[in-house]
Amino acid sequence: MRKLLLFVFLISAISVAQTDDEKQIKAIYDTALLDAKGYDWLAYLSNQIGGRLSGSLNAERAVQYTKERLDSLGLDKVWLQPVMVPKWVRGISEVAYIETTPGKTTNVPICALGGSTPTPAGGLKAQVVEVKGIEELKKLGREKIEGKIVFYNRPMQANLIQTFEAYGGCVDQRYAGAMEAAKFGAVGTIVRSMNLRLDDNPHAGSMSYGDLPESQRIPAAAISTNGAELLSGMLALNPDIRFYFKQTCRQFKDVRSYNVIGEIKGSEHPDEVMIVGGHLDSWDLGDGAHDDGAGCVQSMEVLRLLKKTGYKPRRTIRVVLFMNEENGLRGGNKYAEEAKKKNEKHIFALESDAGGFTPRGFTFECNDQDFALIESWKPLFEPYLIHLFQKGYSGADIRPLAGNDIVLAGLLPDSQRYFDHHHAANDTFEHVNKRELQLGAATMATLVYLMDKYR
Amino acid sequence: MRKLLLFVFLISAISVAQTDDEKQIKAIYDTALLDAKGYDWLAYLSNQIGGRLSGSLNAERAVQYTKERLDSLGLDKVWLQPVMVPKWVRGISEVAYIETTPGKTTNVPICALGGSTPTPAGGLKAQVVEVKGIEELKKLGREKIEGKIVFYNRPMQANLIQTFEAYGGCVDQRYAGAMEAAKFGAVGTIVRSMNLRLDDNPHAGSMSYGDLPESQRIPAAAISTNGAELLSGMLALNPDIRFYFKQTCRQFKDVRSYNVIGEIKGSEHPDEVMIVGGHLDSWDLGDGAHDDGAGCVQSMEVLRLLKKTGYKPRRTIRVVLFMNEENGLRGGNKYAEEAKKKNEKHIFALESDAGGFTPRGFTFECNDQDFALIESWKPLFEPYLIHLFQKGYSGADIRPLAGNDIVLAGLLPDSQRYFDHHHAANDTFEHVNKRELQLGAATMATLVYLMDKYR
Repeated sequence: MRKLLLFVFLISAISVAQTDDEKQIKAIYDTALLDAKGYDWLAYLSNQIGGRLSGSLNAERAVQYTKERLDSLGLDKVWLQPVMVPKWVRGISEVAYIETTPGKTTNVPICALGGSTPTPAGGLKAQVVEVKGIEELKKLGREKIEGKIVFYNRPMQANLIQTFEAYGGCVDQRYAGAMEAAKFGAVGTIVRSMNLRLDDNPHAGSMSYGDLPESQRIPAAAISTNGAELLSGMLALNPDIRFYFKQTCRQFKDVRSYNVIGEIKGSEHPDEVMIVGGHLDSWDLGDGAHDDGAGCVQSMEVLRLLKKTGYKPRRTIRVVLFMNEENGLRGGNKYAEEAKKKNEKHIFALESDAGGFTPRGFTFECNDQDFALIESWKPLFEPYLIHLFQKGYSGADIRPLAGNDIVLAGLLPDSQRYFDHHHAANDTFEHVNKRELQLGAATMATLVYLMDKYR
Repeated sequence: MRKLLLFVFLISAISVAQTDDEKQIKAIYDTALLDAKGYDWLAYLSNQIGGRLSGSLNAERAVQYTKERLDSLGLDKVWLQPVMVPKWVRGISEVAYIETTPGKTTNVPICALGGSTPTPAGGLKAQVVEVKGIEELKKLGREKIEGKIVFYNRPMQANLIQTFEAYGGCVDQRYAGAMEAAKFGAVGTIVRSMNLRLDDNPHAGSMSYGDLPESQRIPAAAISTNGAELLSGMLALNPDIRFYFKQTCRQFKDVRSYNVIGEIKGSEHPDEVMIVGGHLDSWDLGDGAHDDGAGCVQSMEVLRLLKKTGYKPRRTIRVVLFMNEENGLRGGNKYAEEAKKKNEKHIFALESDAGGFTPRGFTFECNDQDFALIESWKPLFEPYLIHLFQKGYSGADIRPLAGNDIVLAGLLPDSQRYFDHHHAANDTFEHVNKRELQLGAATMATLVYLMDKYR
């Protein structure tokens, strides 16, 4: 009975034109769930290729594989856009231990941060000074830091409901921690992994030395959350304990790689471009299934779903699989640079780079008029349990396109589990649920469809 | 900037009294996320006790453990409510294979359905007739069914967004399939597991023979979804293949067990009772972490969170851990029966029995006036990403309380992954995410708080 009432309400409240929308959107979701392809593509990308750090052989394999998949979809054009990317290599597995007294040691799991220098060949051993953040360095001063390893141990704030906020509140320790500690004479840094769980996985991620001369750069690593708790507890008992770590990571010269691009030509406004994308590179510890294999296959699915459901876009719709989001953003910058050079008019860009979890909505960077238009579509999303439409950060790869008339958007999946896996060895295919992934793709395709039709 | 605007909007749109509500609700969520207990309780229930089928030793251990935990919370009263429950035992692991020609066999994973009779001691081998549902039996008629094993193979409908709807559309095959097939002379039934994934886990669950005399009851088992696909494919190639299965399950006499109950006495209306609960029993293949260990510890958390945040309920608030939801509902029936006997006035009941996943909202069985009141609280839930307030089925254990003035509610978590685990060997603790579980508990406590204060 109530269902019937709801149906009547929908029919009367929104126009007949939108009944066509309801049909089109249902076709998109049905196809995504009953005739899924993205999940299979992700299986290949994750299990047959694996981690895809920029400049690696796997990254090149991923370029070839996704191009082949796009070729098979019967798009109007598929191509590779060359881009030079940094090549940082982890080397042999890192080793670290806490030494309470000479010879008495406890191993802890660490990983070098992306971009870090190696330790001396024999490793590095020093006293540890624990801080809750960069601000504390000044208070301590050079005297208490010089010659020591700085241990950044401010945890992610667990009572923030959206976990990306908690990440945003901590990641400065990872990104800038070594650069800042080096200025006070530290010999290395260890950062607590950006992980809301207590477990044994160190979480990688990029860091930067800024303008620091090479001679002053100090090695930086992440320690698992359990390892951080252990180290912190041991330091409380005895501030004189030593920490040892060894890493052999190395920066090579830039190498050529590619953004992978496919498009459906617009039927009315072929010169107006809408893009949907994710980033093809990943960290190297896991297989990059959530970050961002998910976003890549979802973006590829968007074009397939629109084609398969018979929708002919008015504008040109492109999928862009960006290279090197993780440690350089060269792909995103290159794409925007080329678009500007060719005077291409981009009116919409959507990125999926927050994991392949149940979609909840989108964030938008746009003006109020566009946001009002978008909010008017909410009733069309509600049957698919999509409720969140908020202004906010869209996506790293598409932000270089920011400008006058473009709407930037990011898919907002449920974020509770994301940082259990983010940049860690357990960012793997078996932690992606097929339905959640495919619902994300359908939700993205729906937004692209509405944007194409109504903006 | 936008955050500030939103804040101003909330302040102006809802009354000052509700600012107190905002504070209380934030305290509930903060405590649930920063000082979690439910997750640790679930770890014990799952890992130290395990599967808790009614009448089993583990079920009794779970009664003792949860009573001890409730005792430790400083509630006003904690007690056990005796209830006689059925005791069905699986026996040794089931065996099944498909025989294409004599001697050529392929093993497939099955499990006996709860309440099923065993096969003959040496097992049962027969031809197979595949159907998509009970309705097909009549069309086929006794002639095509007699002496055969009926194989129910209607899959869950993957394009339904809420997976419980897909479950509702299939579960008749499991529950009534054997009873109906027996009427046409079938010798056994095999049902495709209620699982939206293709995998190797058979999913248990209850079945009934209704009024069928014992002599006519036939053994019933579930087959994994991969097994169902294989069997169906082989039958398409050769309808003459045989299916063999053996199960040694057995029904014993009813045994005494308990509902576990704890309460905080109401300060203004101690005679008005509000309950929150889950069911303590589980199927035996996994450890019952999602179904329904999660609901139990969340319900226990509700009382702890209210107490810890200093809230003094106006009404009496009870946690009830029901025994025997899975194969009898004896606990739920007993609780309602005793409440009636004692003339207790129940005005609200909330059950969590849909898994420990990210909470999305609630379903309600109530009148329109109460529903309007509940909907007025939506803005208070939105900061916690709780959007779904819909009329619908509440929970099996609390429905026997249905009556004049009671509001029945069910927690509605994200349902995408639930049937990957439901009643199967992989319903285990490691598939429960701490944040998702604790957010569910906080969301329940918030509803209980608002109900107590405003209804």
